[in-house]
Amino acid sequence: MPSLDALFTPRSVAVVGASRDPRKLGHVLLRNLLEYGYTGQVAVVHPAEPELLGVAASRRLTELAAPPELVLVSVPGDRVLGVVREAAAAGARALVVLASGFGETGEAGQAAELELRAVARSSGMRLVGPNCMGVYNSHRCLNGSYFWDLPRIPGGISFVSQSGAYGGLLFEEARRRRFGVAKFLSLGNQVDLTHAEVVAYLAEDVETTVVALFIEGVPDGPALRAAVQRTAARKPVVVLKAGRTPAGRRASRSHTGALAGDAEVFRALLTQAGAVVPRETEEFFDLCLALASYPTGIPGPEGLALLTISGGPCVIASDACEELGLGVPPLREETRARVRALIPPFGASGNPVDMTPQMEPERFGACVDAVLGDEAITGALAINVGLDEPEFAQAFVEARRRSGKPILACVAAVPQIQQVFEAQGIPIFPSPERAARAYAALVRYARARLACAPAPEPADAARTPRRSRLLASRGREPRVLDEVQAKALLAEYGVAVVAERAAPTADQAVEAAAALGFPVAVKALRPGLLHKSDRGGVWLDVPDAPGVRSACGAIRERFGPEVGFVVQAMARGRVELILGGRRDPSFGPVVLAGLGGIHAEVYRDVALRPAPLNAGQARAMLRELSAAKLLGAYRGSPPLNETALVEQIVRVGELLVANPEVRELDVNPLIAGPDGCVAVDAVVLLEDETAQGAAAAPRGHGGEKALEMAEA
Amino acid sequence: MPSLDALFTPRSVAVVGASRDPRKLGHVLLRNLLEYGYTGQVAVVHPAEPELLGVAASRRLTELAAPPELVLVSVPGDRVLGVVREAAAAGARALVVLASGFGETGEAGQAAELELRAVARSSGMRLVGPNCMGVYNSHRCLNGSYFWDLPRIPGGISFVSQSGAYGGLLFEEARRRRFGVAKFLSLGNQVDLTHAEVVAYLAEDVETTVVALFIEGVPDGPALRAAVQRTAARKPVVVLKAGRTPAGRRASRSHTGALAGDAEVFRALLTQAGAVVPRETEEFFDLCLALASYPTGIPGPEGLALLTISGGPCVIASDACEELGLGVPPLREETRARVRALIPPFGASGNPVDMTPQMEPERFGACVDAVLGDEAITGALAINVGLDEPEFAQAFVEARRRSGKPILACVAAVPQIQQVFEAQGIPIFPSPERAARAYAALVRYARARLACAPAPEPADAARTPRRSRLLASRGREPRVLDEVQAKALLAEYGVAVVAERAAPTADQAVEAAAALGFPVAVKALRPGLLHKSDRGGVWLDVPDAPGVRSACGAIRERFGPEVGFVVQAMARGRVELILGGRRDPSFGPVVLAGLGGIHAEVYRDVALRPAPLNAGQARAMLRELSAAKLLGAYRGSPPLNETALVEQIVRVGELLVANPEVRELDVNPLIAGPDGCVAVDAVVLLEDETAQGAAAAPRGHGGEKALEMAEA
Repeated sequence: MPSLDALFTPRSVAVVGASRDPRKLGHVLLRNLLEYGYTGQVAVVHPAEPELLGVAASRRLTELAAPPELVLVSVPGDRVLGVVREAAAAGARALVVLASGFGETGEAGQAAELELRAVARSSGMRLVGPNCMGVYNSHRCLNGSYFWDLPRIPGGISFVSQSGAYGGLLFEEARRRRFGVAKFLSLGNQVDLTHAEVVAYLAEDVETTVVALFIEGVPDGPALRAAVQRTAARKPVVVLKAGRTPAGRRASRSHTGALAGDAEVFRALLTQAGAVVPRETEEFFDLCLALASYPTGIPGPEGLALLTISGGPCVIASDACEELGLGVPPLREETRARVRALIPPFGASGNPVDMTPQMEPERFGACVDAVLGDEAITGALAINVGLDEPEFAQAFVEARRRSGKPILACVAAVPQIQQVFEAQGIPIFPSPERAARAYAALVRYARARLACAPAPEPADAARTPRRSRLLASRGREPRVLDEVQAKALLAEYGVAVVAERAAPTADQAVEAAAALGFPVAVKALRPGLLHKSDRGGVWLDVPDAPGVRSACGAIRERFGPEVGFVVQAMARGRVELILGGRRDPSFGPVVLAGLGGIHAEVYRDVALRPAPLNAGQARAMLRELSAAKLLGAYRGSPPLNETALVEQIVRVGELLVANPEVRELDVNPLIAGPDGCVAVDAVVLLEDETAQGAAAAPRGHGGEKALEMAEA
Repeated sequence: MPSLDALFTPRSVAVVGASRDPRKLGHVLLRNLLEYGYTGQVAVVHPAEPELLGVAASRRLTELAAPPELVLVSVPGDRVLGVVREAAAAGARALVVLASGFGETGEAGQAAELELRAVARSSGMRLVGPNCMGVYNSHRCLNGSYFWDLPRIPGGISFVSQSGAYGGLLFEEARRRRFGVAKFLSLGNQVDLTHAEVVAYLAEDVETTVVALFIEGVPDGPALRAAVQRTAARKPVVVLKAGRTPAGRRASRSHTGALAGDAEVFRALLTQAGAVVPRETEEFFDLCLALASYPTGIPGPEGLALLTISGGPCVIASDACEELGLGVPPLREETRARVRALIPPFGASGNPVDMTPQMEPERFGACVDAVLGDEAITGALAINVGLDEPEFAQAFVEARRRSGKPILACVAAVPQIQQVFEAQGIPIFPSPERAARAYAALVRYARARLACAPAPEPADAARTPRRSRLLASRGREPRVLDEVQAKALLAEYGVAVVAERAAPTADQAVEAAAALGFPVAVKALRPGLLHKSDRGGVWLDVPDAPGVRSACGAIRERFGPEVGFVVQAMARGRVELILGGRRDPSFGPVVLAGLGGIHAEVYRDVALRPAPLNAGQARAMLRELSAAKLLGAYRGSPPLNETALVEQIVRVGELLVANPEVRELDVNPLIAGPDGCVAVDAVVLLEDETAQGAAAAPRGHGGEKALEMAEA
């Protein structure tokens, strides 16, 4: 992988499209480069002007005395390709296209993007954008972006964003909360450079403490996952994901399709790779801030102290800790005695410790020190609304230094304290709940870091899944399987399926039932038939031959004379599960496991993993279900056979990997008991070949103003 | 109910405890009163000073020329009672004790509080506090509080807070987001005045648009509920609740006790009364702000338009709407055509509408107007990061005026737009998710407002529940019921219980089984025996007499030779439910209903109502369960008998109301099928009389500084 040094730490930068007019973005771009203190070589390319903002201009990139390492391009879309070719010819190592008007505009723009990519790939010059806001490196004073008013606070958070506007939000947040940004890159339409490579680069970057990503589309899911996994072993990776497919648009014919949408798959797979995947914007910034101060998280055992002078907000913090399951242990009696001697008589010396607004300021130090020195305590929240005593701030700074224990804060209306905390890297959160959540996230992060396996073990090497004979033999037959075919496919891969027989007529159904042994289940059979139990297509516990005939009659009445039947042995077990598979457009095959019926439908209690997966990973899926205890010994019933369940999950993964035309599959229910489990119903949906490759290419959101402003 | 005008709009105010020293709170209090422009009469009482801050001082309250309507007391705790007595003697109508050092300090302080209350109750003078921050009325320029730096923005939000520090947070938020506060009252320890009365007063107050409450303890739950219900019919009531009992402390012996903790009961009962009960601080402020602009919410049908120039944040907003179930319908083709003609070619004209940063500013007006004019659209979110064009702001202000449709905003780094939106009452939220959540809350609020019955119907008047004969006859027997007694108690109130017989010996168990008919269930029977199924104390489907003997043997082996048995007919049904009851310390008896087993234990899918309740309310409980569809026709099974279920719920409520000594009860499981339902197991926990009345009195959190600062 070539280095991205030319992009982030170039020795020379050329600007194409600068302008004398201060209202134009080309002007802003050049001014930013000159004003932020960049010490490398700056060149300007302009077809007409002899100089711009004091820099002598050349006519063409190829006319520069030396090849520029980085080229920033702010010209109208139709002139971009020419400039990119010229940059490649001039020997540039990296180029950022800030202009928009490409893939986001339609087919012509997409074609232009392919040409841009071709130039980049053939020349080895790395290309960022188009449709982006540029690049920023605070440690090199390099502002190669349209953002003209950045808070110039150096720090450890590096942010890679597909959206330009999210860059704006980040810098606004950084300004307000006084945190430092190491590097910022707006990726835009990702014609060449994508998140995956930048993440890998930032993993090695000593100035980056936290890698923060805003992602909409993922053109290379497996590469991203691998890069995140390698990086997360070294430093925190925090990801905000946008672009959940609306429920309407992902209307799915399988349960798995409905349960494992793109957002769910993204979250599950990136979390498993070691990333922190917050659910919303503010949590994203909170966790970047918290992890920048405490990049290895907060290791257990949990022992959070709540220290306050503000009762109400502390009660809310305490409630939040309770809901988050954060341990707020009582202090040792010795500590309590020390605290009691320091605080007013109506204060609280347990945990929470309420020092009250009546606390003598010079006693804060000794009190906070006593609490942080308690061996039951591993970290603290400092809570203060409106009592702006510098001694309060100093007490926490000193106690943290002495104890080495992490401190987070929720303070408001206390400008002096805020300033000290910000300068000392004690992260401040605007509400008690957000402070508690950030603390809990740091605890979870430390735990996940320890638990993180170095790399996913490969699936059992002895088993190289072969393509299905059943599918291979189908040729140009209708690409829809019926229930019996679906289970035959599962059985090919070793999934345990219920004993059953297809029966085109009622007579044959009676015969099949007699062979299987009563009672039986009688079900309607037709390719592509879904939700048959809701529609009167499933008759369970049919006791005898007349029962079979009457079930068949009722089914024909409902589904028409063409419908066939399948007769099955009645499966007995304690728990119904759902197993599923789906081909995610970004990440490829994923396997789903969960409790069936209402558990999956209403509570969405399911686990996801990429396929292939091994037994250990399958077991982890079962154990992460909310209702996992149902699978063990429960209310006097013996535990389910976990080994058998694990095996079914692994085999569904193999089936998916070996047969790319399987788009979605459900085994629902898989009926499980202490002795084993058996697939009772199954749906397999094959790829509609006309729909293949229809996944839209990801688009960035530049935030740049008025393309027409860029100087012609 | 006496008016609280003397507290909020007094014609005269006397300050006791003012000081010449500007560092003392008594000084701050008097200065606030004089500086904020209060036009009523101000008197000062001081034992030594002839004047303070230009106001002539009297020696005693009783020496004032006319009785003061309101007295503000900022003296040390030990002098408070004397001042209060004097104020009553002087004929004051209301008094605020800002001093702390009372109930929050221990027994002596609690005794002092009882004396304060006695003076207030006997004189009719209303008393606020002690341990509070005071009173504020922006419309009368009355600042009778310790807050010296209030944002002086008049507006419609009135905030009643037990915590002083939450007042600080409110004013900080008001300053930052430029919203107006009508009245603020810090309640402190609630010796006399509680939330309930203030809420009732604010219901009538024309200057109050939104009633906002911060509540820790509730001394008078039913009164609060009634006041909220009456008020919510007229204006929004938003409540933030603090003080969830930690799980450890509420360790409960029944499932209902674990599922219906104080926080859950508070949320359920106040929501049913029409209050909006957000889950956290920032949501609380967001909803106050949103409801202040749109006090009747946003009526359906839902048709939210997302209008932006910032792609990334709009995608996040769109995701949030999707998760919240907010309808973002496509625009009519005619609207789309108008929008397309106005926005750049790479913009988006569907919904979301992305006008892009390249939009010509003078076109914002026509575009926003077109969208808001679409009949599919009932409201809009305006999203803008960093493009500070005044035309953007004006477009939304004008379109809202013309269409009458509500607009909420998520804007950042756009000071000019922010200023216009704030001035025009278009509420601004700091993240796309918070804006979407506020919008969804307004939609829910409008729906709940319409659905809100005027008052809870009383339970069926024909049925006046009588005290249980079973309990009445027990006298001083051990206050623990066994399973058979628990079900006998339920049966007294008409709950359907399974056919069963207690059997002290194995022989009697066999006899009972024969009488009931095989198969049977055999269970261990002992008062106070819990979780018996987890401990081998339940044998189901026992087929014959030898089976009964062996079950009895196994049970004796496990539970000892003293244990008895209960033999039951096997109940058959499709669904297991849990019914429960609990006596909440603040709100009295509440009834719980939900799906049993894992549904209740893991997913906490339960509904709560105060008892007594009628059939309509019981039916509403069943219908609000997440898994409600399991109770209807499900997967080919016929629906459960809802009438029977409803009846059981109503009767459990009657049992609770008639028998105050029942502390908690579980009917678990209640096995239900299409024909009816039957209680198979039950636990009833009676009040431990020594523990009665142990509910702690609520305490406020004043935020005042240094009691010792108050001048002696």
